[in-house]
Amino acid sequence: MSVNGRYFEEFAAGQTFLSPPLTVDAAAIIAFAAEFDPQPFHLDDAAARLSIFDGLAASGWHTAAMTMRLCVASDFRPAGGIIGVGGELNWLKPVRPGDTLRAEIEIAETRSSKSRPRQGIVKIRITTRNQHGDAVQTFAPTLFVDRRPD
Amino acid sequence: MSVNGRYFEEFAAGQTFLSPPLTVDAAAIIAFAAEFDPQPFHLDDAAARLSIFDGLAASGWHTAAMTMRLCVASDFRPAGGIIGVGGELNWLKPVRPGDTLRAEIEIAETRSSKSRPRQGIVKIRITTRNQHGDAVQTFAPTLFVDRRPD
Repeated sequence: MSVNGRYFEEFAAGQTFLSPPLTVDAAAIIAFAAEFDPQPFHLDDAAARLSIFDGLAASGWHTAAMTMRLCVASDFRPAGGIIGVGGELNWLKPVRPGDTLRAEIEIAETRSSKSRPRQGIVKIRITTRNQHGDAVQTFAPTLFVDRRPD
Repeated sequence: MSVNGRYFEEFAAGQTFLSPPLTVDAAAIIAFAAEFDPQPFHLDDAAARLSIFDGLAASGWHTAAMTMRLCVASDFRPAGGIIGVGGELNWLKPVRPGDTLRAEIEIAETRSSKSRPRQGIVKIRITTRNQHGDAVQTFAPTLFVDRRPD
């Protein structure tokens, strides 16, 4: 791996990378929701107990944002940065105050890009797990990663 | 629409809802990135000019989070809240300092849920546009919406 991170040529399907842990508390859940997803079940435990969540739960977008932070902190480090054009995002279980999250990154596929000759396409699958090992979110984005310079 | 919002029975494919506008500035882009996506092109304009973004750009997760805020502020208002299990998320153009975003919500499909008899499934398509009308993000989530009580 260069100082710039891993070039496209260094990735291959089946490789996995793991992030450090991140623990989320009620204050962080409520602060994120107040700014971006102000619905009662993300803002107040008593209100959340009356909802389908049955207790305070993080906004899915908060889980997604924390997952991005975990990916940046992991040893994945593609050259040029983690730059995605999107993919399938799924929330599987609520994230609760006190949960500790980790992101697992698996390389699903690598292939050349016709439109961007200086980059390659890397499809990955990111699974965000809580401290029980339960998957709380999956995201399967398509990334563009710099090729090794000639 | 009840005080609880629109019940499942009030939604039908083809309906559209529009959010109010939200303008994003450089400080908000940098603050979000510092917490959740600390990569140079989201943190510093000079560094971003050397990247594929060619100037400071919001994290895609910031765009997604702002879009959620816009949806909550719109007249969409499904009963029980906006509760999604995920869907296809795509980032189409960078979001820049000074951009003004709006979210358009279109009902794509409604159908009964076998697993959740008190809720119905509503598939929507959310298009986030900037002040030029360009789509910067699309998200096509599946939601569960409360049915009208008997």
